[in-house]
Amino acid sequence: MRFAATFACLGALLLLASCEPPAFEEPAPAFDPQTVAAAVLEVLDMQLDAWNEGDIDGFMTGYLNSDDLRFTSGGEVRYGWRRTRQRYHERYPDRAAMGTLAFEDLDVRVLSGHAAMVFGRFRLAREADEPTGWFTLLLEQHGERWLIVADHTSQ
Amino acid sequence: MRFAATFACLGALLLLASCEPPAFEEPAPAFDPQTVAAAVLEVLDMQLDAWNEGDIDGFMTGYLNSDDLRFTSGGEVRYGWRRTRQRYHERYPDRAAMGTLAFEDLDVRVLSGHAAMVFGRFRLAREADEPTGWFTLLLEQHGERWLIVADHTSQ
Repeated sequence: MRFAATFACLGALLLLASCEPPAFEEPAPAFDPQTVAAAVLEVLDMQLDAWNEGDIDGFMTGYLNSDDLRFTSGGEVRYGWRRTRQRYHERYPDRAAMGTLAFEDLDVRVLSGHAAMVFGRFRLAREADEPTGWFTLLLEQHGERWLIVADHTSQ
Repeated sequence: MRFAATFACLGALLLLASCEPPAFEEPAPAFDPQTVAAAVLEVLDMQLDAWNEGDIDGFMTGYLNSDDLRFTSGGEVRYGWRRTRQRYHERYPDRAAMGTLAFEDLDVRVLSGHAAMVFGRFRLAREADEPTGWFTLLLEQHGERWLIVADHTSQ
């Protein structure tokens, strides 16, 4: 029995050594940054495709459908998915106004397993002009989906 | 001895139960969001005080001193702490140009124990005008300090 007790104690010590570190050390991330980055870029790819098919409502599915959504552009801040959608429909009433959208210089920063920031440039190729500008997006995971919860765009 | 072995086994089981959960479950945050938010707001308070004392170099200590710092404003993106500092000195050459800075509607989102986003409005009260605009900041913890690593400002 003395041997059994010794092994049990040794086992307990080994278990102690493998336990999580004290709370003041943040645990190692339990998520894969590359998986998060890929999921986030998938949202932007979907938005790009929807836009270039003239589908603003499809484009809007990349945004959190909530009153908490924040959309900043042209010196104004709008809150809520419906207002953001309305602004897109007013500003881009037809296919010619929508033009062809492209994203450039995308920089994705994975901040946790549930949050990522994307910075980049947009270009809109249209008959009459080619508006361009920069955007900073905050995306968060809601259930299985990654969605834009804040958009700050400037020209 | 049988009792000693039983207790040791029980101890090992209790230790097992307290060990970290499997990797597919993200661990509970080992940080206090309120502590993070307070640390982040301290950086902005410091910047506000420095600005309103006419101290641009003091203001600049709130930014990550690195070539990775990204500063977006007026349709342009600058990379690096030195370029950002230079732009501030050029744009605000004297006390009159600096005016009195105020921040409004600050919204701090704590994204992890090491990252937070701050959105808000700035107002610059000057003799001749009162420029205002919106900013989205990403702050990260570097060592003991919280620092702005990306700034997107628009008027």
